[in-house]
Amino acid sequence: MVEPTEIRVPYDDLVNVLARILLELGFAEDRASRAAGLFANASRDGVYSHGVNRFPRFVRALRNGIVDPQATPVLISQFGALERWDGCLGPGMLNAYQCMERAIALSGAHGIGCVALANTNHWMRGGNYGWQAADAGVIGICWTNTMPNLPPWGASDPRLGNNPVIIAVPRREGHLVLDMAISQFSYGAIESYRLKGQMLPVPGGFTVEGELTSDPAAIERSYRPLPIGYWKGSGLALMLDLLAGVLSGGKTTHELPSDPERETRLSQVFIAINPNSIGPPERVNALADAVVEDLHRAKSSGAPVRYPGEQVLKTRSENLARGIPVNASIWRDLQQL
Amino acid sequence: MVEPTEIRVPYDDLVNVLARILLELGFAEDRASRAAGLFANASRDGVYSHGVNRFPRFVRALRNGIVDPQATPVLISQFGALERWDGCLGPGMLNAYQCMERAIALSGAHGIGCVALANTNHWMRGGNYGWQAADAGVIGICWTNTMPNLPPWGASDPRLGNNPVIIAVPRREGHLVLDMAISQFSYGAIESYRLKGQMLPVPGGFTVEGELTSDPAAIERSYRPLPIGYWKGSGLALMLDLLAGVLSGGKTTHELPSDPERETRLSQVFIAINPNSIGPPERVNALADAVVEDLHRAKSSGAPVRYPGEQVLKTRSENLARGIPVNASIWRDLQQL
Repeated sequence: MVEPTEIRVPYDDLVNVLARILLELGFAEDRASRAAGLFANASRDGVYSHGVNRFPRFVRALRNGIVDPQATPVLISQFGALERWDGCLGPGMLNAYQCMERAIALSGAHGIGCVALANTNHWMRGGNYGWQAADAGVIGICWTNTMPNLPPWGASDPRLGNNPVIIAVPRREGHLVLDMAISQFSYGAIESYRLKGQMLPVPGGFTVEGELTSDPAAIERSYRPLPIGYWKGSGLALMLDLLAGVLSGGKTTHELPSDPERETRLSQVFIAINPNSIGPPERVNALADAVVEDLHRAKSSGAPVRYPGEQVLKTRSENLARGIPVNASIWRDLQQL
Repeated sequence: MVEPTEIRVPYDDLVNVLARILLELGFAEDRASRAAGLFANASRDGVYSHGVNRFPRFVRALRNGIVDPQATPVLISQFGALERWDGCLGPGMLNAYQCMERAIALSGAHGIGCVALANTNHWMRGGNYGWQAADAGVIGICWTNTMPNLPPWGASDPRLGNNPVIIAVPRREGHLVLDMAISQFSYGAIESYRLKGQMLPVPGGFTVEGELTSDPAAIERSYRPLPIGYWKGSGLALMLDLLAGVLSGGKTTHELPSDPERETRLSQVFIAINPNSIGPPERVNALADAVVEDLHRAKSSGAPVRYPGEQVLKTRSENLARGIPVNASIWRDLQQL
């Protein structure tokens, strides 16, 4: 009998199981619920790589002492609408959530708020913090640095991070939320194409010999994935890392260990902007609607033409109705923790 | 006898000739000098496409009434560190310069400042405003929307702008300044490869038949250049446009005329962040130095490994010493204006 590789779990069950595990691992009750919810929300919204399927790695990080379940961010310095916090190696998703909340509050007081966070851990799905801002009715922009995993343009050794960046604009009929890493494909995506025996849809890296390739196995061998836009993404990744380090006072990519299991002391930036403080909210919504409508009038060349985040609400509603997809063996292991 | 296609003009002569023309076209004296300097600085720093060689097009825009030489930005609304200005169709480079100055001042008062500008004109070289912020010792981030010139991912008709974005971080030994459009290659760059009979170094667009291509002539025929990172740059371009429209209250790309000679009513955003307000300036500089040093330790795969802006200071110093390169026939025409 073939075991199913994926099962569907009701959202509330998912949150309860994860929260119980986190409680046992030393989380306070409200923090266990919040963190469990953020993992579940990633899977609910279709970002399976950084949702529940990633939870076992998070448990390892807690057990290895990489993540301190009880640590909370500490305010280091502030000036007007700009603040620097130290994440004290607490859970990355809780640190990030708190810092976006703080940026949103600052945007209420100053129109714009910027919170820079040092010494934090992986925030899992970055899009969560964009949705958080948009749900609060404000623009959210945030990014994180990562360990070195991307060669700079012109080089063969990974020295840049793929530094995901999120940009969110609120809209009543569905927020626009861009959530993208600066590499063209994540290693997870590259592996998944290889396992399916497929080529990447566009060149995603170099061979060991230095030729551009769409062959996922060749990129896994060379460790040379491509930044988006070649030299352009290379420059963008470097600047995002530098901004995160300069604003937070924390580490930049080249100071981080090159091991996914030991990745820590990340630097992040959270910006919230309240457009309603300088103009009528109706105009924001109408303009976002008009931009979406114009996009949807595009002449399709075959593939669907979508705005960033367009699929999320459909996936969310399907997953809430049918249950959240989780890797079956991961779910079995989690229930035995 | 073959005419030289390019000559070198001393920087001061360049500024004086351009300023005299602008005075005759209705600019006040200080504004003529400032605008002339911004054109000359672009060429001085090697951005020839948006420097003096672009000046004749700017003169046409003044004569056509697209640009009002005497209009200056008007404050529409403000809240804390966030302001909305109307550019009143004044000269784009002067409007942009003034708004970045205002963002820098706001960052002095609030740590961060954000100025959104509606109804402005082409700012020419966006990097100028990044250098402006970095020269003032602060981080500068700015972007502009443009007329539709880039098909969204999945579509064949241009509906997005290539929306250049600038990120600048100050550093004593040379600022880091990223200045990039969201298209992989500008139409100017594509034309220049075609004129030299060269293929693009990486795929830069689609053929009429919808195949990825590195052939510049094929992309000129299809009007389908590529966004950086394919679907990623497509999403990024859309979000930058939406942010500019939402914050400025001005036009988004789909509302702009699809004619480079009539492009106007652009929306732009200028953000300045003062890292010295929340930490020691020495640390900012040391961190920027460390990031640059690490980059320079990369194993070259053949091409030089450079940080964004690295070439600018070399080009600047060479051009100041030898004269600023200007297209010979453009220079002849300008002197007869």
